[in-house]
Amino acid sequence: MSAVTSPLVWEHVQPAAARRLLTGAIDAFAERGFQATTTRDIASRAGMSPAALYVHYPSKERLLFEISLYGHRAALEVLRDAGDPAPDDIPGDAAPESSSSASVTADRSPAERLRAMVSAFTAWHAEHHTIARVVQYELAALTPEHLAEVAAIRRAISAQLEQVLADGVDDGSFAVEDLPGTTLAVLSLSIDVARWYTPHRAKPEDLGTLYGDLALRMVQA
Amino acid sequence: MSAVTSPLVWEHVQPAAARRLLTGAIDAFAERGFQATTTRDIASRAGMSPAALYVHYPSKERLLFEISLYGHRAALEVLRDAGDPAPDDIPGDAAPESSSSASVTADRSPAERLRAMVSAFTAWHAEHHTIARVVQYELAALTPEHLAEVAAIRRAISAQLEQVLADGVDDGSFAVEDLPGTTLAVLSLSIDVARWYTPHRAKPEDLGTLYGDLALRMVQA
Repeated sequence: MSAVTSPLVWEHVQPAAARRLLTGAIDAFAERGFQATTTRDIASRAGMSPAALYVHYPSKERLLFEISLYGHRAALEVLRDAGDPAPDDIPGDAAPESSSSASVTADRSPAERLRAMVSAFTAWHAEHHTIARVVQYELAALTPEHLAEVAAIRRAISAQLEQVLADGVDDGSFAVEDLPGTTLAVLSLSIDVARWYTPHRAKPEDLGTLYGDLALRMVQA
Repeated sequence: MSAVTSPLVWEHVQPAAARRLLTGAIDAFAERGFQATTTRDIASRAGMSPAALYVHYPSKERLLFEISLYGHRAALEVLRDAGDPAPDDIPGDAAPESSSSASVTADRSPAERLRAMVSAFTAWHAEHHTIARVVQYELAALTPEHLAEVAAIRRAISAQLEQVLADGVDDGSFAVEDLPGTTLAVLSLSIDVARWYTPHRAKPEDLGTLYGDLALRMVQA
């Protein structure tokens, strides 16, 4: 799963100098917090002068915004891919007259989708715990406009999970009294992994398996 | 439940000037992070000079340590009180010859205790979300000696929860495959409330009720 492998998250950031500044900023923000980090700190981690930083990013907040945007988008993508109702349903592959029923039988149950989503989302937060901490704990440092953009992705993340819970309630496999509250709790369980995770405690994928099971137990009828 | 009411957490801090510095430090650390906060910031929030601060606390780290110590102790106390196996068992009240069997029948089931513990622990993290954020996110700023003291309380918190899960496994009411992993997950669910909680989202006690139910579902046989 390429989105779970650290270096690839930033490979689209070009040129390399901009990428070095971004990863330097993640380390600095994670170590000292956004407020205590100077643009000089970030530039020197990237082997650059503060003036060179401004060629790529107009401000320290802009760096935080890009980190937050990429981090949230990557987490949303992981959740969306894992929760795909019919991941192997390739259009055009099935004969036209049977494609509709074929796609129905290929659909995975809400339980399968929920387990896969929480497993992947949890493993992502373990693997990327440094980025996830910056992204989750420094929201208050974003400008209102940037926060609004990030908030839209956060709502999309919630909507993905709430939909699979609603699907399970609809088909009777889940019993959920408070849908938004339970959605938030399940996401929160995965996100908090970033706070305490260190590689010596567990492998990201093992943690994902445990949390997928626990989430399923939280909602099963 | 007095420990859940904000001002009372610090009432034992004397004199009032020391208490004002402590609450000023909580607000400053929560707003800007430990690293970006100066002793001057903290002193001015308490209406004092930086020199007056040093009369009460030798360093900014000492303030963080006291906040961390009190915050962790309060959370442990809430968990311990809520999980008491026989809260109404008052020694000397029962006739001596029947006291042993009376205390057995008064014992609450692991399910009741777990639900009460998670409810109270969650409500505490909602009510005290500002303190909890400082306590949870600034551990790395403590000296090794202070961190060791706090870590001992953290282990006691885990032990309280792990014990009730183990009791439930023993009497067959719980099915838990990974006891330490599930203990961490249940605690994590409550602690992460501090990250996203704002009073407009839910009342602390309602959130506690929901989370008590969810935790029980995570472990029930």
